Amino acid sequence: MNENDDIFFMNEAIKLAQKAAELGEVPIGALIVRDGVIISEAFNLRETEKLATAHAELSAIEAACKKLGGWRLFGCTLYVTLEPCPMCAGAIVNSRIDRVVYGAPDLRFGACGSLFNINSYPLNHAFEITGGVCEEECKALLSDFFKELRKKKQ
Amino acid sequence: MNENDDIFFMNEAIKLAQKAAELGEVPIGALIVRDGVIISEAFNLRETEKLATAHAELSAIEAACKKLGGWRLFGCTLYVTLEPCPMCAGAIVNSRIDRVVYGAPDLRFGACGSLFNINSYPLNHAFEITGGVCEEECKALLSDFFKELRKKKQ
Repeated sequence: MNENDDIFFMNEAIKLAQKAAELGEVPIGALIVRDGVIISEAFNLRETEKLATAHAELSAIEAACKKLGGWRLFGCTLYVTLEPCPMCAGAIVNSRIDRVVYGAPDLRFGACGSLFNINSYPLNHAFEITGGVCEEECKALLSDFFKELRKKKQ
Repeated sequence: MNENDDIFFMNEAIKLAQKAAELGEVPIGALIVRDGVIISEAFNLRETEKLATAHAELSAIEAACKKLGGWRLFGCTLYVTLEPCPMCAGAIVNSRIDRVVYGAPDLRFGACGSLFNINSYPLNHAFEITGGVCEEECKALLSDFFKELRKKKQ
């Protein structure tokens, strides 16, 4: 992957995040790519699905496993607009994803370098991390959403 | 919960783990209890479902969210035969489970005190941990399974 590919796929993830926002969900989008092809797409649906695990990354991983017919997502890259939380970082390890590209860092809950880096532990798989792709757009998605939410609550 | 309750529910989790073993799955069972009542039960189905996320704990959490109609599992205790991995420990945080009781420690991948303790990070939720309940039975489940597997492979 070159930098332009990363920007292209992150823009697709941003579009998915916008779909979450339209449903009143915190706007986070994710997709999984293999050999330049999008294998799965998902966005945060925690409130709609009433499910603690319905994060964009986890849903994208599950959809990719189903599509590819196995639990090992070798050769896959996950794009996500926000740095993965510990649950999702653990799911990335468990699914053997090669690489994660995220947009905005999550200083409070990010497990790919902010709060901690899951790769710093000697697990049975580690993955490459590229952070800060389309960072400003990804940050704006979230800050606009929460600004709007506060306005509605007034 | 008193110690006898913990032993009772762990024995139920062991029965679930045995169902996994019957399917050729690594025997790990989990269940969620609230007010002394079992809300959900699950066991590892990673190979059967071909799903990286089909760990016993994650499936039990998802089933409990569906049963209770919300993503916050306040007042719930999760029983699991093996110490949760980082993904599952993260899901426990995300679902706001109050307490985790596990059987055998997982020295390689356990995120409730062995490899690391998820509660050592300043996340937005922490949970009580009781480890080593029916530890020998839970360890034997796994060691018997892998012994049998090696025998089959010879």
